Amino acid sequence: MNGKSLKTKISPEIRLSIRESQDSIRVKVGGFEIGGDNLTVIAGPCSVESREQLLETARSVKRSGASILRGGAFKPRTLPYSFQGLGVEALELLQEAKAETGLPIVTEVMSVEDVEIVERFSDMLQIGARNMQNYPLLKRVGKTRSPILLKRGFSATIEEFLGSAEYILKEGNWRVVLCERGIRTFEPITRFTLDLSVVAVLKQISHLPVIVDPSHGTGWSSLVPPMAKAALAAGSDGIIVEVHPCPEKALSDGQQSLNLEEFSQMMQGLKEIAKAVGRTI
Amino acid sequence: MNGKSLKTKISPEIRLSIRESQDSIRVKVGGFEIGGDNLTVIAGPCSVESREQLLETARSVKRSGASILRGGAFKPRTLPYSFQGLGVEALELLQEAKAETGLPIVTEVMSVEDVEIVERFSDMLQIGARNMQNYPLLKRVGKTRSPILLKRGFSATIEEFLGSAEYILKEGNWRVVLCERGIRTFEPITRFTLDLSVVAVLKQISHLPVIVDPSHGTGWSSLVPPMAKAALAAGSDGIIVEVHPCPEKALSDGQQSLNLEEFSQMMQGLKEIAKAVGRTI
Amino acid sequence: MNGKSLKTKISPEIRLSIRESQDSIRVKVGGFEIGGDNLTVIAGPCSVESREQLLETARSVKRSGASILRGGAFKPRTLPYSFQGLGVEALELLQEAKAETGLPIVTEVMSVEDVEIVERFSDMLQIGARNMQNYPLLKRVGKTRSPILLKRGFSATIEEFLGSAEYILKEGNWRVVLCERGIRTFEPITRFTLDLSVVAVLKQISHLPVIVDPSHGTGWSSLVPPMAKAALAAGSDGIIVEVHPCPEKALSDGQQSLNLEEFSQMMQGLKEIAKAVGRTI
Amino acid sequence: MNGKSLKTKISPEIRLSIRESQDSIRVKVGGFEIGGDNLTVIAGPCSVESREQLLETARSVKRSGASILRGGAFKPRTLPYSFQGLGVEALELLQEAKAETGLPIVTEVMSVEDVEIVERFSDMLQIGARNMQNYPLLKRVGKTRSPILLKRGFSATIEEFLGSAEYILKEGNWRVVLCERGIRTFEPITRFTLDLSVVAVLKQISHLPVIVDPSHGTGWSSLVPPMAKAALAAGSDGIIVEVHPCPEKALSDGQQSLNLEEFSQMMQGLKEIAKAVGRTI
Repeated sequence: MNGKSLKTKISPEIRLSIRESQDSIRVKVGGFEIGGDNLTVIAGPCSVESREQLLETARSVKRSGASILRGGAFKPRTLPYSFQGLGVEALELLQEAKAETGLPIVTEVMSVEDVEIVERFSDMLQIGARNMQNYPLLKRVGKTRSPILLKRGFSATIEEFLGSAEYILKEGNWRVVLCERGIRTFEPITRFTLDLSVVAVLKQISHLPVIVDPSHGTGWSSLVPPMAKAALAAGSDGIIVEVHPCPEKALSDGQQSLNLEEFSQMMQGLKEIAKAVGRTI
Repeated sequence: MNGKSLKTKISPEIRLSIRESQDSIRVKVGGFEIGGDNLTVIAGPCSVESREQLLETARSVKRSGASILRGGAFKPRTLPYSFQGLGVEALELLQEAKAETGLPIVTEVMSVEDVEIVERFSDMLQIGARNMQNYPLLKRVGKTRSPILLKRGFSATIEEFLGSAEYILKEGNWRVVLCERGIRTFEPITRFTLDLSVVAVLKQISHLPVIVDPSHGTGWSSLVPPMAKAALAAGSDGIIVEVHPCPEKALSDGQQSLNLEEFSQMMQGLKEIAKAVGRTI
Repeated sequence: MNGKSLKTKISPEIRLSIRESQDSIRVKVGGFEIGGDNLTVIAGPCSVESREQLLETARSVKRSGASILRGGAFKPRTLPYSFQGLGVEALELLQEAKAETGLPIVTEVMSVEDVEIVERFSDMLQIGARNMQNYPLLKRVGKTRSPILLKRGFSATIEEFLGSAEYILKEGNWRVVLCERGIRTFEPITRFTLDLSVVAVLKQISHLPVIVDPSHGTGWSSLVPPMAKAALAAGSDGIIVEVHPCPEKALSDGQQSLNLEEFSQMMQGLKEIAKAVGRTI
Repeated sequence: MNGKSLKTKISPEIRLSIRESQDSIRVKVGGFEIGGDNLTVIAGPCSVESREQLLETARSVKRSGASILRGGAFKPRTLPYSFQGLGVEALELLQEAKAETGLPIVTEVMSVEDVEIVERFSDMLQIGARNMQNYPLLKRVGKTRSPILLKRGFSATIEEFLGSAEYILKEGNWRVVLCERGIRTFEPITRFTLDLSVVAVLKQISHLPVIVDPSHGTGWSSLVPPMAKAALAAGSDGIIVEVHPCPEKALSDGQQSLNLEEFSQMMQGLKEIAKAVGRTI
């Protein structure tokens, strides 16, 4: 087939994120490896809102089989009047959740100045979609040794996505995990359009692990389980999903968050798909 | 979860393609049923090019487990200088392939005047993406009793897609199968962007069967198997794929066609996914 | 500058709609010529609803300087439950309006079967955006000698737009006028996104006249005058706008229709722009 | 007309960039005012490449009637291997060009740390499209008293665009000028699709000045003059264009840069349009 031809569509200047060998690398986050046969499930609330909310979620997703805990401390919001995250307080709560559950932590870093503190409190740094082309930030995290979860911009082409990965890789940090999280299209019902073909393309041309965010990608909790299954079937190395003990009370993104029970049920279905593609969860 | 909320996003004027009961209907095509536990695999060449090409393909896809044979007789091409299909001659060859293999036939009808002859030679009428809003054609096929494969327009919203289904249903023909085949986005590497979230949405709000075309949806044969798997995992009732004995010599769409061996291999993987979602192929 | 380079981006198979000479051809509609120094203003209601509505509009737009009268008889509507147009009755009313005002008539034809009757009652046939790739229809109007107003599909590339023009030209009808009417993008406030760069591109690579529809292109009457001005400044050979004596009571597209007074005012502004680009209205 | 209705489509949370009074504010940049009857023309090279290149361009555009000089010092490039700008050296050259020609300077700032130095050397800070949702950067420039040129993201909705303006305004800096520079669509011929309807919308709902970048918006120098005219006709308060003494040798964006003579010619045409809309250049 034409995996080779696909590579010819990418600029030859992109070199660090494209490798001859088809083997996916593995990126270690705490004691867990992304990119191996064992699929990654990152779960947790959109925003860290309180000690109770975070700990209850962490315990529950751990029990259901999640491998990494997510939780927003610094939140990029469209309007300055929206909840902007608890900041350092949230980072401390994430540490507490890690201490209790053993789950490594991934959380977003929004600016060069915050890299140091976010690194201290987390196991993996997330670069959000809005910052995918924030080059000073990419260069800065490229100088760390932390694993980086790089989310695709809303309207970034595959080439631009890899171009952003190059900024990190070129600084010496090879621990980059790519994340598809939905692109802008004309369809008004879903929040974004989850583009799973990008997963299939990236798995054929790059050695970097690829995961999918069906929560932001769809905007509706009822669409998360089917799209999570589809992501794994398309070859994704894992998923990142929003989970909240009480989505209707969430300070951000409640509509797209699974509750604890829904997450647990979804995990059952994902195990079947993992087996079908020769992997495990 | 919020399957109910999703319905509130659809105009209340859309009524025939939205049903209270969540049960998918089944649409009979020849001896095969689309929409039941047994997943549908429609396979065959983009265009019928010759007796040998068609029969070789038909025998092979039948052996590999396809349930319905596709093949273009009247082809909608961007330029008038491109191969426009063999027309009635192709219809006769499709009949011959059916006689030999027992596979029912689906083929595209492009105009009101051709409905009668295409109906005579086929088991299911396809309305192509470019004709999704050709209302006289929709009304005309709504007056037949043939099963209709309605492809989504390149940039049709879900509401417009269902609006087109309404045109057929309103005339009394309830045998409508919806087909996602990729939408227009900014991404240049893939031919279209296959939108699998539309499958998840449609399965939650409509009773009509939904299938997916990963060949047109991606434009690359190497992307067809992973996206076919993803489609089934997302809840699709089946797939329609282009298969050609020698894709590099195809008169149309060779780049996205599987060869006979690739199709056979793909079917193995699909069987695993089918099992994972509690269905069969 | 790089008008020549722009041509290299178009498939060499497109040949009839691309001409060496940069001179725009002129297409005669009744006594009026589209493509000359005198800019074209096509105005009238979205749908012909009644004798009074049509005649009042026709008289008024004539007085304000319109050159051609538009009015829908056969309407392509997203849902089968919406007003579908008055059909032949509307065609007769358009004839009456022409007889009284002298304005030539353009109206949409939606199917091959209707071409003959629509031709009898009008001076120019419109192919709507939804039918831009209805190839049997394009071939059929290519066999007439009527001027054709070919609207760009919602998500048609420039190359596909010209490809559709080729279908008409190849049959021998060279009287094709291209019309940009807005494309699908992610922006929800406007109904479509009016793409004026396509006007600039087409004027550099094709000899066919180009006009713009700011009514459908924006969906808001308050945006029509500024975008009509912009269209003429970008090099458009004219505009087509929806005008209704009482937009809030219109059976279709009221939100985007100018009332008679607003149209008259807009014409004043357009005369200034016409002068600025060395043309007249 | 429905300027009022347009406002109802915007979230009521957006308040500082939407004002009751329809009067545009004026933003002073050096001795020049953006937003008044006199239209703004910002011109200069994509990147400052050398003393000669910059000074020659500055003198020439000044002679042709430009009001502000642009020139990139810190360049956001898709790949880390591309020319990244001369940095502080470029800022010093811009100062020299200002000293000689009297033209005030606008240049992009890409990170919080650079705000102070860029402010020292320029009269207006540009926030580029890729940083439109870099909230720490928006807050930081909101704390300055410099005029801000805020470019719309490639796929930012109008509401998100205004949301980003709110971040600056909320910090106390009211000197915000909005700039449309093209959005991502499916069309491959132009680099982006210049969305002039956003100009018409913004002029109806916001008091902030709006300008247009036809260079990035189209990607082709031959499309710049017609789209610049169209922008002014649509109600834009000005344009920002790339000019280079020798575009074919430019280190970035040569294809879309006007040469000095082309810029001068374009200015003649713009004067006519300005007059037609009751303004001056």
